Amino acid sequence: MKKGFRTFQPQLNTWDTQLHFPTPPHFLNDWRAQIDAAQDQYAALSPLQRAKFLNDLAVNLLQEKESIALIYQQESGLSKARFEAEFQRTHQTICLFANYIQGFDWQKSEELEYEQIRFSKRVLPLGAVLVLGSSNFPLAYSTLGGDTIAALAAGCCVVLKAHPMHAGTSSLVAQCIAQTLQQWALSPFVFSHVLDDSFHWASTFAQERAIKAIGFTGSIKGGRSLMDLAAARPDPIPVFAEMGSLNPVIIAPNQNQGALEQIAQKLALAIHTDAGQFCTKPGLILVQSEQADEFENLLLKALAPLPATPMLHPDIYAKFEARKRQVFQSKGFKRTENQAVLEGIFARWGIAKTQLQDLLNVPTALEEVFGPFAIVCSYQSLAELQTLLNILGGQLTISIFTNDVQPNTKLLSQAQKIAGRIIINGVPTGVRVLGTMHHGGPYPASSDARFTAVGPDSIRRFTKEVCFQTHL
Amino acid sequence: MKKGFRTFQPQLNTWDTQLHFPTPPHFLNDWRAQIDAAQDQYAALSPLQRAKFLNDLAVNLLQEKESIALIYQQESGLSKARFEAEFQRTHQTICLFANYIQGFDWQKSEELEYEQIRFSKRVLPLGAVLVLGSSNFPLAYSTLGGDTIAALAAGCCVVLKAHPMHAGTSSLVAQCIAQTLQQWALSPFVFSHVLDDSFHWASTFAQERAIKAIGFTGSIKGGRSLMDLAAARPDPIPVFAEMGSLNPVIIAPNQNQGALEQIAQKLALAIHTDAGQFCTKPGLILVQSEQADEFENLLLKALAPLPATPMLHPDIYAKFEARKRQVFQSKGFKRTENQAVLEGIFARWGIAKTQLQDLLNVPTALEEVFGPFAIVCSYQSLAELQTLLNILGGQLTISIFTNDVQPNTKLLSQAQKIAGRIIINGVPTGVRVLGTMHHGGPYPASSDARFTAVGPDSIRRFTKEVCFQTHL
Repeated sequence: MKKGFRTFQPQLNTWDTQLHFPTPPHFLNDWRAQIDAAQDQYAALSPLQRAKFLNDLAVNLLQEKESIALIYQQESGLSKARFEAEFQRTHQTICLFANYIQGFDWQKSEELEYEQIRFSKRVLPLGAVLVLGSSNFPLAYSTLGGDTIAALAAGCCVVLKAHPMHAGTSSLVAQCIAQTLQQWALSPFVFSHVLDDSFHWASTFAQERAIKAIGFTGSIKGGRSLMDLAAARPDPIPVFAEMGSLNPVIIAPNQNQGALEQIAQKLALAIHTDAGQFCTKPGLILVQSEQADEFENLLLKALAPLPATPMLHPDIYAKFEARKRQVFQSKGFKRTENQAVLEGIFARWGIAKTQLQDLLNVPTALEEVFGPFAIVCSYQSLAELQTLLNILGGQLTISIFTNDVQPNTKLLSQAQKIAGRIIINGVPTGVRVLGTMHHGGPYPASSDARFTAVGPDSIRRFTKEVCFQTHL
Repeated sequence: MKKGFRTFQPQLNTWDTQLHFPTPPHFLNDWRAQIDAAQDQYAALSPLQRAKFLNDLAVNLLQEKESIALIYQQESGLSKARFEAEFQRTHQTICLFANYIQGFDWQKSEELEYEQIRFSKRVLPLGAVLVLGSSNFPLAYSTLGGDTIAALAAGCCVVLKAHPMHAGTSSLVAQCIAQTLQQWALSPFVFSHVLDDSFHWASTFAQERAIKAIGFTGSIKGGRSLMDLAAARPDPIPVFAEMGSLNPVIIAPNQNQGALEQIAQKLALAIHTDAGQFCTKPGLILVQSEQADEFENLLLKALAPLPATPMLHPDIYAKFEARKRQVFQSKGFKRTENQAVLEGIFARWGIAKTQLQDLLNVPTALEEVFGPFAIVCSYQSLAELQTLLNILGGQLTISIFTNDVQPNTKLLSQAQKIAGRIIINGVPTGVRVLGTMHHGGPYPASSDARFTAVGPDSIRRFTKEVCFQTHL
């Protein structure tokens, strides 16, 4: 716990010189002594006050934009354009929630007149929430990302465990929040920023009595560990883990040449942009056997000119390379990779070609490969596709490219059983922050199919209801 | 699994002659072969069709009312009046849900015009639900109780594990459902009725792939077992367990004689009606020390003339007697019991008197005693009450009797953290089926503070959302 750790600079392929130090052990005692009072104080704000607080937070974040941009790009290796998009999305999400909670129905009442009883049901914060920063969205799914914003909007205190590889970005964003709390004369324990490069603080806080829910974006292994910890507590708590997904894309038969080319171009970008480090990256593309070769050629042609980018850190890179090799070496899989000369942790895209009967024999190919990689798989019939959907686990998305006005109803019916979002004639990347968004899906895409991690409805993860029954 | 079992006749203190046989093992294979098709078929009904189906169910239930009344009273020992109330409540709940789902917002849509993308988010059934019949509500929380109705209203198939002590009642109600399914030409696997007198079928179905959620009303031990089973699945599923509760009642200081007498009379009925076999039975009554003796006398006076009733079955009776003795024997607890001559499993009410400092030293006194028993505990100050609320686990209810227009805000603030419902100047028994009801609370009152087991909002336990994103 005492040793410092460093972040990585993916573009330069070097470790940063600055040391970050894990939050010291005594922080836990301070937090335990203060969290109940902090939660009371913060929950006592009216929705309008919370909305104003969130708006002030957005202002303070905007003021630090340039310094955040610098360290964000340094630590993540992501581009300026990507920073701009992610920063704007984060800023917009704060404002969206500030607006949403002002119109939210925090209380409904009714009266049984003949019995002279008044009932009112109030929506209340669940309590303090533990949020784990993700690796692939240093802003939008991290320190002041969707989980934190939804929790704060609900009236919950937050403990944010920073992703160690974005310790600098996270600390800067945390300072914006601390500053806003100070302006509002609110307890600094309304938002606690903890740092380490191990599982220590995550597992410690996951088991703390005052923590009432956990938000997580990351691997199935990480998410499941938290779910198991939370379920084993004397008082189990809900975990909202948004985990891995294969995001199958089905291309219906009989696409004309132009359409197939367009689809290939869209998918190439979805696979390759930011080194494919998205939970919604399409990982499996199903093409009818007669068009499979043609589609693969178009996809490879679309990928060829795309400039390589580095991955987020050496560990993700190593895992990507290992998983890619694992699938490539499977029986019945043909390998194509980017042939460019690449250095450091710049990602080498890969496309594996196979057919459905072979795919079904390789369980590891049905698990996410995080990075710029996809399987192009040929199918013979609708029946074959149905067999596949039947054995696939939960998915964040399923996409269908089709010429028909209505996609095949059997496919749709199966798709809506296993996926949280179904995309018709579009790619799964680029999740919109909307009231109609559902970002989640059956396990293992997420820990609970009933909740979205994106959009205003995500506040429901962190609220509870209490009935007040008054006999007049 | 092959041996038959019998139900008990509490009023006659004898085992019934009829043998009930556990559902045979091969049923599981039949169910596995049919459940996906049944779920597809039932989920394909429109909300209006489901509403009509529920209304037909209500009609069929009404037609069997007399035969159900007979076996209900025989198996539960509960009165005709109680049957009438519970039957009516069950019937009304079916009609309420039939009505509710017709007005429910099953889909919301929006369009990003500049991008030509249409989003629509649909509310869909989660999948098949396992429901365990409770012991204390042979109708309203059993075969066609709140969980089953909410699941059917949501579009979910149900596997109902009957409570063995109401095997006859449960089978009759199940026949009404089977008959309605037949009228509608729906698969009999839309509703499956399974029977045993062990944990076999509950634990088997809790781990079945096609089961997507569990509804349970009963003990903390039983609920936690199911939660642990569900959390250990390869794909964990949510459990909605409504478990034990102490339901503390706080009587504010300075009640006048008349008010104190009224409170005592209301509480005597709440403790004693139907042998106190309610999850909302008040189990701990906190009275300011100056009025504690007076209140206890009034309570004992109110209890004295109430006619004893039998408990539901010998096992509940034995547990009640053991738990009652356990609390009576604790240091600092004074014992008063019904002195009448009672036979069989007729319940002997008990009141334990103590003071708050002693209560805090006896952890087992802070757990529910299921049956006609309550602790009358004197307190010195608000601070003492706050100490108690701080160490109490989750509660279904907290009641406050007060002369003030607004109850003490510190108490209220603490109460809403640990209880799902707060009652001002009323008793916790008699849960109303309303849109503003919240029947649940933090663990261990329920498995998830965010969901109610009663009222139309309880449908949210069994629905999920899927986003359909169409690129035009």
